[in-house]
Amino acid sequence: MPHPLLQPPLITLTTDFGLTDTYVGVMKGVIYAIAPDARLVDLTHDVTPQNILEASARLEAAVDYFSPGTIHVIVVDPGVGSERAACVVQTEIALFVAPDNGVLTLPLRHQAPERAVRLTERAQPYFRQPLSATFHGRDVFAPIAAHLAAGVPLDALGDEVPPDNLVRLPLPVPYTTHNAKGRPRLLLHVLYVDRFGNLITDLERSEWERWQTGLQTQGADTKTASITVQAGSRRWQSLARTFADVSPGEPLAYWGSGGRLEIAVRDGNAARLLPLAPGDTLTITL
Amino acid sequence: MPHPLLQPPLITLTTDFGLTDTYVGVMKGVIYAIAPDARLVDLTHDVTPQNILEASARLEAAVDYFSPGTIHVIVVDPGVGSERAACVVQTEIALFVAPDNGVLTLPLRHQAPERAVRLTERAQPYFRQPLSATFHGRDVFAPIAAHLAAGVPLDALGDEVPPDNLVRLPLPVPYTTHNAKGRPRLLLHVLYVDRFGNLITDLERSEWERWQTGLQTQGADTKTASITVQAGSRRWQSLARTFADVSPGEPLAYWGSGGRLEIAVRDGNAARLLPLAPGDTLTITL
Amino acid sequence: MPHPLLQPPLITLTTDFGLTDTYVGVMKGVIYAIAPDARLVDLTHDVTPQNILEASARLEAAVDYFSPGTIHVIVVDPGVGSERAACVVQTEIALFVAPDNGVLTLPLRHQAPERAVRLTERAQPYFRQPLSATFHGRDVFAPIAAHLAAGVPLDALGDEVPPDNLVRLPLPVPYTTHNAKGRPRLLLHVLYVDRFGNLITDLERSEWERWQTGLQTQGADTKTASITVQAGSRRWQSLARTFADVSPGEPLAYWGSGGRLEIAVRDGNAARLLPLAPGDTLTITL
Repeated sequence: MPHPLLQPPLITLTTDFGLTDTYVGVMKGVIYAIAPDARLVDLTHDVTPQNILEASARLEAAVDYFSPGTIHVIVVDPGVGSERAACVVQTEIALFVAPDNGVLTLPLRHQAPERAVRLTERAQPYFRQPLSATFHGRDVFAPIAAHLAAGVPLDALGDEVPPDNLVRLPLPVPYTTHNAKGRPRLLLHVLYVDRFGNLITDLERSEWERWQTGLQTQGADTKTASITVQAGSRRWQSLARTFADVSPGEPLAYWGSGGRLEIAVRDGNAARLLPLAPGDTLTITL
Repeated sequence: MPHPLLQPPLITLTTDFGLTDTYVGVMKGVIYAIAPDARLVDLTHDVTPQNILEASARLEAAVDYFSPGTIHVIVVDPGVGSERAACVVQTEIALFVAPDNGVLTLPLRHQAPERAVRLTERAQPYFRQPLSATFHGRDVFAPIAAHLAAGVPLDALGDEVPPDNLVRLPLPVPYTTHNAKGRPRLLLHVLYVDRFGNLITDLERSEWERWQTGLQTQGADTKTASITVQAGSRRWQSLARTFADVSPGEPLAYWGSGGRLEIAVRDGNAARLLPLAPGDTLTITL
Repeated sequence: MPHPLLQPPLITLTTDFGLTDTYVGVMKGVIYAIAPDARLVDLTHDVTPQNILEASARLEAAVDYFSPGTIHVIVVDPGVGSERAACVVQTEIALFVAPDNGVLTLPLRHQAPERAVRLTERAQPYFRQPLSATFHGRDVFAPIAAHLAAGVPLDALGDEVPPDNLVRLPLPVPYTTHNAKGRPRLLLHVLYVDRFGNLITDLERSEWERWQTGLQTQGADTKTASITVQAGSRRWQSLARTFADVSPGEPLAYWGSGGRLEIAVRDGNAARLLPLAPGDTLTITL
């Protein structure tokens, strides 16, 4: 039994549209025309354009803080106008309206999907007409979210599919090894690069803590042991708390807002300096 | 008979204030003090400072998507503190509150004005006092919009003027000619330059499609014919769909968010590179 | 007797989080979960990171325009995770929820505090749990503001302290002197540097007008007298109205959005060019 939608409805928006153009404002106009009492929250409109994985990671860090019954609309949609499907996914605490392009991969690790619907022709009456080829945020995702908020059931929008059939992004995972001297070493990967050139890795803080606990049970003194981070052409000791912990131009590793280890260069661009790209490996050695 | 205002009121804001300062937030505080149940939507606050034509074009592309009865407030106002008038314009589906400086030129092509009022001393009781010389967004436009939302009639604010008497921006229009070889050629003009140096032209997509249809009826095969764009110092073939279609540093022509042909340089500034300025001519030859 | 809170509640947000990350959106999700009918206004999220004085000055210029009974939440909090206290301050027209780090210094010059409470363990039930070490915007300030909006009394949150015991920022003040030729001279100080390198001074417009009136009563003709501004390595005549009044690369002095004299360099960075830093002195000579 899914959680009922909030009344008045709460709809969040996540896009790569930026706020300079009127795209986001127009989506809100479309929503208010259908669900006049909706409350709207901007999660972010600054996703790096067409970076599905970044959008997915930003959502993952945010959706848990919203009341059960919230509707999340995501429009990071490089396939707009192609054959990619649009979907509505219901979890135990939320509804997601998004292109079926993998953008829900990470939030759905936190909130197990209960039902998934791929939009079909049945949803056409709920689209904005004429349907444009390039702005489905306005013509598909905003109106579908608003109609859901106004009480349209999932069944009316398309065919139910097993949630496992939704497109998922391939995700690297960190793993443990040892260096030549037998010291424990964690291999991480660059998950995505944000618009500032910061590298967001696949290492989550909870996993890091589990790793440290595991080493402690093996007798390692993780509290006093020094850490070596090796990322691309650079190597340094210790994790930083803030950018101010290092000099301008120097790299640092820190726990980012999404709960993942991030690599940045103070006043610089880590992706370019090191250089590293999504999928590349880096290591932390104890 | 005009469409009644929405209840609860819906007010959109368009300014060149940016979001770093608290100007926009303060305008919202002023609105909520007068119309506590208003719903507020930011269209954009990133209009290039004092670029009335850009604001007008951004509005044109956006206002059609809002419910009948919406109030649009526009504060792009280089004449603030001078003798320029402020106006309220009622169309069949919206109310506009703006300086009478031409900023409504383009939206009023879509929504024919039914009534126009220039604010006079009669509006003074609805202004914020003391009236500043520089921030009429806070002291004039926000409170007037909120009082309209709260039920104050247009008559109470000033003198009715024929809508044709409102200030209009001079607008270039594209026109058809032929090149030396007799091929059909469209002459366009730069309408405005946005803050990224992109050139927005006076060619609307609908006009382009009409032009192509016209050529087809004359026997031209517009589907397979190649296109040559000549803009300033550069010339290239074909329209692009996205920036990714060209290499960094290369120019491209594409249909922009407002439905107009735009010229940009990937990772660069078209206005400076080509160089071109508002009013300059460019051509598309079939 | 304090002004009752607005119904529905009105809550403003001021942070240094920016809008690229989802921090601000998450704070709104937390607020809506507790106070579903709240109206939310963003004052600014572009305070220079950790610049408490800048946040204080931005607030000072804004809070007077909100209805009595508004709740202002401020999260510019370099001491997060340390022993710094959090506080709720009630003035005759507003409630402030903020770290007790001096950020309220300037707004409290306009709105005399009537009651101040430092949060203690008593407030724990109103925090988000688990309480993070780094994101008190989400875990402390947003939920406390929302609970206040929902009717929780100040007493329930901590111990009342004399408002004079709140942390205050040391503030420079402008003062009058004379130059070698006996001409009246005003010594100002840089209050803070914003993210564009503009220098915001401690000279308020009202004080400037008082100074001019004072000189007039002493027989000076302040209307026609020329003004010399000396700031760091540069010296120039007259105050400007807008950036367009000077050439690119040239410095100017103008009345900023917060009612203070500001020094900028057109298309440049005044803090770096002149160079000047917070606390440094500059002069205006008549």
